[in-house]
Amino acid sequence: MPDAPYIVGVDIGGTKVACVLADGEGRIVARQWQPTRSAEGWQVVVGQLFEMTERVLQGVSPQLVRGIGISCGGPLDSQAGIVYSPPNLPGWEAVPIKSLFEERFGLPTRLENDANATALAEYRFGAGRGSRNMVFMTWGTGIGGGLVLDGRLYRGTNDLAGEIGHTTVLLDGPLCGCGKRGCLEALASGPSIARRARELAGESPDSLVWQKSSPEGVTAQHVVEAAQEGDLFARYVLAEAATYMGIGIANVAQILNPERVVLGTIAVKAGELVLEPLRRALAVHAWQRVRQVLQVVPAELGDRAQDLAAVCLWLED
Amino acid sequence: MPDAPYIVGVDIGGTKVACVLADGEGRIVARQWQPTRSAEGWQVVVGQLFEMTERVLQGVSPQLVRGIGISCGGPLDSQAGIVYSPPNLPGWEAVPIKSLFEERFGLPTRLENDANATALAEYRFGAGRGSRNMVFMTWGTGIGGGLVLDGRLYRGTNDLAGEIGHTTVLLDGPLCGCGKRGCLEALASGPSIARRARELAGESPDSLVWQKSSPEGVTAQHVVEAAQEGDLFARYVLAEAATYMGIGIANVAQILNPERVVLGTIAVKAGELVLEPLRRALAVHAWQRVRQVLQVVPAELGDRAQDLAAVCLWLED
Repeated sequence: MPDAPYIVGVDIGGTKVACVLADGEGRIVARQWQPTRSAEGWQVVVGQLFEMTERVLQGVSPQLVRGIGISCGGPLDSQAGIVYSPPNLPGWEAVPIKSLFEERFGLPTRLENDANATALAEYRFGAGRGSRNMVFMTWGTGIGGGLVLDGRLYRGTNDLAGEIGHTTVLLDGPLCGCGKRGCLEALASGPSIARRARELAGESPDSLVWQKSSPEGVTAQHVVEAAQEGDLFARYVLAEAATYMGIGIANVAQILNPERVVLGTIAVKAGELVLEPLRRALAVHAWQRVRQVLQVVPAELGDRAQDLAAVCLWLED
Repeated sequence: MPDAPYIVGVDIGGTKVACVLADGEGRIVARQWQPTRSAEGWQVVVGQLFEMTERVLQGVSPQLVRGIGISCGGPLDSQAGIVYSPPNLPGWEAVPIKSLFEERFGLPTRLENDANATALAEYRFGAGRGSRNMVFMTWGTGIGGGLVLDGRLYRGTNDLAGEIGHTTVLLDGPLCGCGKRGCLEALASGPSIARRARELAGESPDSLVWQKSSPEGVTAQHVVEAAQEGDLFARYVLAEAATYMGIGIANVAQILNPERVVLGTIAVKAGELVLEPLRRALAVHAWQRVRQVLQVVPAELGDRAQDLAAVCLWLED
């Protein structure tokens, strides 16, 4: 039913699974969530999802439901609806999640990777509103991306468009988790910020950072907190990461000429502490004519993004 | 007349202007060209274009013409149809070429930058045939690009999408003509290849390159010829440029996950001498899953590209 009023949104995360029922304007009318029982195997997790989906659909006639959207970490095949072993879901080797849902509920189901789905949510309801060409970038444990170009999600040839975190920003730079060197993610992600603080710990033993954590246990969160309290060492470490982020965004901007770049977690938490050095790097590495139409802003939806992301798969035209 | 059988294609270059009449399958049925009288001002050049357009339209009823396509170097505003001082057309400050043609011929006219128009031509008739996501890159005096994504030309927010030549590939690298440092164009374009040969001339005084030219007069063409004759110095210089090209393409591939990258002039002329080192760099800097769907190939249309480029503006769906 393309015009049916309700949409089911399913979010599969490594620590939490959630299911919502939303209307066509993205208003959540029912919500379920559980800790992901990922250690017990994918069948158990799919059982959790089925159970939650049944609950949010309780008393709702199937004719009133447009479809089910599922947001999940990649790699996955959005067309076939198959999930291929995301790092946060061990053992999910080729799980045909789309057909499992379609068989169980008799409702058309769409699967999308979480960065793309969140991009759609920010585009429609968050910091991307009113733009036509938007790059969304997660900025936390990893750096991923979702591209909305000419108003439509662009997935690439095999669902790998937007892997901005794995563009090379520093030739022969630090080793990345992906096996390459000098990736943006290896220079600017949360764990990279923590690693850099650790590397430089000996040079700034009096930093506030070390009142919050030992070098071994330090996280980007500690660095952001210390920076917010005025600590210069923490500010330096953040600015260095943000500078690389600015270079990576400049390259994306020269290629895609977007009007909005929406940045996730670290930009939301650290605000101008990262946005200011980021914009300075952008000014060095992207043309003025490219920058004049471009706004770089933090994401707006916060926790709501995950609820809305999967729902947005049925709000596309 | 959206289904009219004929299309006029106008190509505005710095040294040559041309005009063709083509049918809906891209077959050229009439052609005119002249050296560009650019020193005499834009009015004179527009006069040349009008004259040639009149000639190819001689005896053709206006009802039989779908429209006029114009391909020109940027910067330009494709929507408004205005050309803003391309480097190769001095004095073209805000020339409203679209409305000038529409007033003169009473035919709907479209303007596009030449890299985008050529991308469409390669996509439809050349090395991009059969692909859905294609990146076309000019590789000569400059390095530019045109993006066909999900089967449609993607222009960006203000016609600047595809400026791949001005992504930063080497931090603090050589100064680029655009004013930035370390741009792909400053590392891999024809003039950059010539500059690099010149820089290294003292280290390889016996190279064949210096039998073809003095260091002052050397061009990429001399380097390619010497490399084709087996000269190791020339091969080294080409391989270095091609390696940077591979890194730049890897970044584009991680962002856009295309299935085809089509490369212009230097790849066409030097073939495997550049494609082999380019692919090796791509293997280091792009994921295997990205490369497994990607072909990097030389352009196919050669001189036909310019004739077809402007025509293709009326073959889009």
